[in-house]
Amino acid sequence: MKILIVGGVAGGASTAARLRRNSEKDEIILFEKGAHISFANCGLPYYIGNVITNKEALLLQTPKSFQDRFRVDVRVNSEVVSVNCEKKTVCVKNHDTGETYIQDYDKLVLSPGAAPIVPEMKGMAFNHVFTLRNIPDAYAIRDYVEHTRPKSCAIIGGGFIGLEMAENLQRSGVEVSVIEAASHVMAPIDNDMAHDLHNYMRAKGMKLYLNSRALAVTENSVVLEKGIEVAADMILMSIGITPETGFLKDSGIALGQRGEIIVNDYMETSVKDVYALGDAVSVRHIVSGKQMLIPLAAPANKQGRIVADNICGQKQKYRGSQGTSILKLFEMSIAATGEKEASLMSSGIPYKKVFTYSLSHAGYYPGGRMMSIKLLFSPDEGKILGAQIVGYEGVDKRIDTFANALRFGLTVYDLQEMELAYAPPFSSAKDPVNMAGYVAGNVLDGKMKPFYIEDLSSIQEEAVLLDVRTDKEFEGGHIHGAVNIPLDSLRSRLKEIDKNKKVYIICQIGLRGYIAQRILDQNGYETLNLSGGYRLYRAAEM
Amino acid sequence: MKILIVGGVAGGASTAARLRRNSEKDEIILFEKGAHISFANCGLPYYIGNVITNKEALLLQTPKSFQDRFRVDVRVNSEVVSVNCEKKTVCVKNHDTGETYIQDYDKLVLSPGAAPIVPEMKGMAFNHVFTLRNIPDAYAIRDYVEHTRPKSCAIIGGGFIGLEMAENLQRSGVEVSVIEAASHVMAPIDNDMAHDLHNYMRAKGMKLYLNSRALAVTENSVVLEKGIEVAADMILMSIGITPETGFLKDSGIALGQRGEIIVNDYMETSVKDVYALGDAVSVRHIVSGKQMLIPLAAPANKQGRIVADNICGQKQKYRGSQGTSILKLFEMSIAATGEKEASLMSSGIPYKKVFTYSLSHAGYYPGGRMMSIKLLFSPDEGKILGAQIVGYEGVDKRIDTFANALRFGLTVYDLQEMELAYAPPFSSAKDPVNMAGYVAGNVLDGKMKPFYIEDLSSIQEEAVLLDVRTDKEFEGGHIHGAVNIPLDSLRSRLKEIDKNKKVYIICQIGLRGYIAQRILDQNGYETLNLSGGYRLYRAAEM
Ligand SMILES: Cc1cc2nc3c(=O)[nH]c(=O)nc-3n(C[C@H](O)[C@H](O)[C@H](O)COP(=O)(O)OP(=O)(O)OC[C@H]3O[C@@H](n4cnc5c(N)ncnc54)[C@H](O)[C@@H]3O)c2cc1C
Ligand SMILES: Cc1cc2nc3c(=O)[nH]c(=O)nc-3n(C[C@H](O)[C@H](O)[C@H](O)COP(=O)(O)OP(=O)(O)OC[C@H]3O[C@@H](n4cnc5c(N)ncnc54)[C@H](O)[C@@H]3O)c2cc1C
Ligand SMILES: CC(C)(COP(=O)(O)OP(=O)(O)OC[C@H]1O[C@@H](n2cnc3c(N)ncnc32)[C@H](O)[C@@H]1OP(=O)(O)O)[C@@H](O)C(=O)NCCC(=O)NCCS
Ligand SMILES: CC(C)(COP(=O)(O)OP(=O)(O)OC[C@H]1O[C@@H](n2cnc3c(N)ncnc32)[C@H](O)[C@@H]1OP(=O)(O)O)[C@@H](O)C(=O)NCCC(=O)NCCS
Repeated sequence: MKILIVGGVAGGASTAARLRRNSEKDEIILFEKGAHISFANCGLPYYIGNVITNKEALLLQTPKSFQDRFRVDVRVNSEVVSVNCEKKTVCVKNHDTGETYIQDYDKLVLSPGAAPIVPEMKGMAFNHVFTLRNIPDAYAIRDYVEHTRPKSCAIIGGGFIGLEMAENLQRSGVEVSVIEAASHVMAPIDNDMAHDLHNYMRAKGMKLYLNSRALAVTENSVVLEKGIEVAADMILMSIGITPETGFLKDSGIALGQRGEIIVNDYMETSVKDVYALGDAVSVRHIVSGKQMLIPLAAPANKQGRIVADNICGQKQKYRGSQGTSILKLFEMSIAATGEKEASLMSSGIPYKKVFTYSLSHAGYYPGGRMMSIKLLFSPDEGKILGAQIVGYEGVDKRIDTFANALRFGLTVYDLQEMELAYAPPFSSAKDPVNMAGYVAGNVLDGKMKPFYIEDLSSIQEEAVLLDVRTDKEFEGGHIHGAVNIPLDSLRSRLKEIDKNKKVYIICQIGLRGYIAQRILDQNGYETLNLSGGYRLYRAAEM
Repeated sequence: MKILIVGGVAGGASTAARLRRNSEKDEIILFEKGAHISFANCGLPYYIGNVITNKEALLLQTPKSFQDRFRVDVRVNSEVVSVNCEKKTVCVKNHDTGETYIQDYDKLVLSPGAAPIVPEMKGMAFNHVFTLRNIPDAYAIRDYVEHTRPKSCAIIGGGFIGLEMAENLQRSGVEVSVIEAASHVMAPIDNDMAHDLHNYMRAKGMKLYLNSRALAVTENSVVLEKGIEVAADMILMSIGITPETGFLKDSGIALGQRGEIIVNDYMETSVKDVYALGDAVSVRHIVSGKQMLIPLAAPANKQGRIVADNICGQKQKYRGSQGTSILKLFEMSIAATGEKEASLMSSGIPYKKVFTYSLSHAGYYPGGRMMSIKLLFSPDEGKILGAQIVGYEGVDKRIDTFANALRFGLTVYDLQEMELAYAPPFSSAKDPVNMAGYVAGNVLDGKMKPFYIEDLSSIQEEAVLLDVRTDKEFEGGHIHGAVNIPLDSLRSRLKEIDKNKKVYIICQIGLRGYIAQRILDQNGYETLNLSGGYRLYRAAEM
């Protein structure tokens, strides 16, 4: 059997390796239009920032090592320019020789990935405008920084690549401005969770332009709407990517509206014997069931193994993606899995939410840091629909736990039950995940009745805003109109609160508010407790 | 309703707090025989090692703060000396006044914990012999170290407390010897996984006496079997703990052979209206179904919440423990969940096993460190039965994932599918957990046919031992009798291997051996591949 693979990195190389392990007999030819295969896309920003100091470290395999180990005929600088599914051939352009040739196949695997979007905007042709996808891009950026020593860089688009580059450019001594069209950077999280990140970026000295659309690039600036000009000797375009499927236009392989390849659960395209995977395909989101572009390395690698097995007759389903992802920004970690609130809302999926703040490990053991968790779950059974975490150490651990809870259909009650490894340097006897489960369970059980920051503006005049933090905390800042009765004196001061008025309870994070709520509710009050507390409110105000 | 609680720390205090949140009306009295409640047992070793510098940090609650917040009548220095279940009373001895009184109850909660075992051995009365359970113990040890400046300490018993103390005493400038009766320290892991830990301890300068039973303690030594004498100005006894249930002897409450309180899934004892939890009870192990003592803080805390709910009529089951635990020893982390191989074997539970080695995060991003994983799973469906990890950063994250896989009935195929958060500083596109799932799945699917270190001695003379590492690796050390054909030249050198002989393949960790196996098997050879590879073999030999 002759198997052709288009694209030699995450999806393509993974497919090839597993194919060979499955079968010594098949002929495998891998086409890569660039000069490198099997490179660490995800490491590129860190090479630019000189965190990865060794160029070679970026190359996991070379054509030779791949041939030696897996007997794969690797053809670099070889672009597949068209596919003829009837004749079962592809047309290949060899960029070394300029020649074009036809290659036939029994099975065809498409993993061409996605290319950075470059909008039609004035100034895109300047050679201080960069995108980052592959090794030559990374070399070009690093060279530019080392040789031209730009004072400032404007990063247009605050997603994963934009923010990783923001860190690494700043590390290289470049002043960074991040320009983002949406109201917050990092699209996988909701606006309410992004405040901490915004504040952190500003504290790190980055300039942040939110709700800001770039209109043009000049020699030394980016021009925004409303005439604002952001100084920039260098520009990185990181506004998103688009499936690189131009070569499939006339192939008859079904593509979606954004050019993505349509596949079924077996990663088969609309055409027999043609498989596709990675950033170029749309996959089913396991929460919404919608077909979506979820361009991440782990799914691409997994799909590669599944494609190889399916080609070899060991049928296997890809069960969908959930967008589990994480970003490191200096010491901060921002992670998400599943759907965010905004998406649940727009998909009309019912949900409930809670905010919790937990230390990464036991408070009495030095070095623990707080993380904010937003947990989204179904209002009936409490099935996990999504989670977002912003914090420092230990964020990665907890997002993985939520990701598994989501994938395997667990509920908030299951989170309570999880028996996680506890010793003081690693966690608390009630892990942050357990804690989120307790709070969410309490909401479902009606023990914790929450209200949210966004409800503050519609609270009626006659209601009581009750802040149960200490006098000192209250003096340090509070929500306008709140009265202060510290939790530990609440029982003895109950008569100060009018039983005929609805009581909106506020504390720092929601925990003391909950205890206050338990006391008040059992004394005949009608209460709501601010989920996320003053801390979340404050972050939004900063 | 009047609720009495015996024991004011992990289980007792957690019960009290949740009870009060459940109900403002009940009267709650908490008896603690010591002077402190709600303290961080788990932090004590780190206070001794001055990692936790502040005494106060160890006290999560005081009697006053607990009264203020939860309106619990906390009585310290108050030991419950007997229980009369017929009259529904307890007899309390007030150690401040010496008085004894009777207190009646509607519901009784027992969380007395477990006390260090001190064997009947010569020298136990010396005042340089210590145990560690509570705050006075910790003060005594720290005082002794600071004022007497012992040169050396012998730690008898290499479990969690023993090894945490080994680190912290060494940090305080004391030379440490660890004496362990079993063949390896850290009972939750198997012998094969303990070699790395033993080697690490030795490299850290600790003396390690395995298979060594202490017979007596002298003024400046510990005497072992075979007349070996270990110099020691100080001794810590950490050979285990025993339920502190002497006061229940005549209560009619059913106790097990080791004095543990017998409870059902609702944490109810054999006597109506009496509940028990924490280190003093036996619980069902979720893998073996056996009743076991699993004395850990996280289960105690969780059980507290469940007991409180059950008392308040919100019936909830405790679904059993799985012994998820972790130890930090300097930079190393040792973690386990579920059953170890030795226990599966002695319980007659069928299993399969694989060893994998993975980097904590992407190899090209600096700072990643290898972790060894042992995964145990059922031979039919591949259900996770247990996992052990020895490594450095990121061990805690992976053990939690395995723990959840085990608790929620997942299989090795589910591990493959997990979509975990990947960015280079945190993991690899195939997380170590995915990788363990791949290897285990390959074993079940018959693609990877493993053999193990312990099989080496019974390999027949005529078999081929084939080492597929590079020449250089082979020269650096190999298993006696092995021939070397590096993987990347295997296909071209196949004729050097006799097809009539069984081939035992060896590489560094098992990965290249697996690829070699795929090549050889498809060429008509009968092969086995050493799981864990030369690396595991070498660790055992050191
Ligand atoms: C800077 C950067 C950082 C990233 N960081 C992360 C991260 O931290 N975590 C994460 O999960 N993901 C990350 N990603 C995304 C991840 O790299 C991709 O999801 C993954 O590589 C997708 O795999 P793929 O095989 O679909 O595409 P690619 O890995 O992009 O491979 C596609 C290859 O196909 C080639 N090709 C395209 N068309 C043709 C053709 N017609 N003929 C021949 N060859 C062709 C391309 O040249 C390319 O080399 C990052 C990506 C970038 C660029
Ligand atoms: C040094 C050390 C380190 C540890 N590290 C960890 C770790 O890292 N991770 C982990 O999971 N677990 C750890 N543990 C174990 C954990 O602390 C226990 O599992 C947990 O505290 C058990 O809770 P409990 O309520 O059953 O018992 P305890 O917390 O021990 O509380 C029982 C209390 O009851 C009191 N009491 C006993 N009898 C009576 C009586 N008759 N009348 C009145 N009071 C009585 C005792 O004085 C004691 O204070 C550690 C334990 C120690 C000692
Ligand atoms: C490196 C690359 C070629 C994949 O190669 P691969 O051989 O499939 O992957 P690995 O080297 O991780 O090896 C995994 C295999 O070894 C096996 N294995 C791992 N450890 C083992 C052990 N201890 N014993 C036995 N087998 C083992 C696994 O089972 C798996 O084989 P399987 O798929 O047949 O089950 C491909 O992932 C790649 O090109 N990556 C770079 C690009 C990229 O991923 N970019 C995005 C992230 S930066
Ligand atoms: C501290 C101690 C008294 C427990 O107190 P606790 O009030 O149950 O626990 P916490 O302070 O963690 O608070 C948890 C409660 O706050 C709630 N909560 C936490 N964060 C919240 C938030 N953001 N919003 C609303 N509620 C929140 C939880 O739901 C939970 O309440 P619930 O049990 O009614 O669901 C007890 O664990 C103890 O004594 N510990 C020390 C001893 C010990 O554990 N030793 C072993 C380890 S060292």
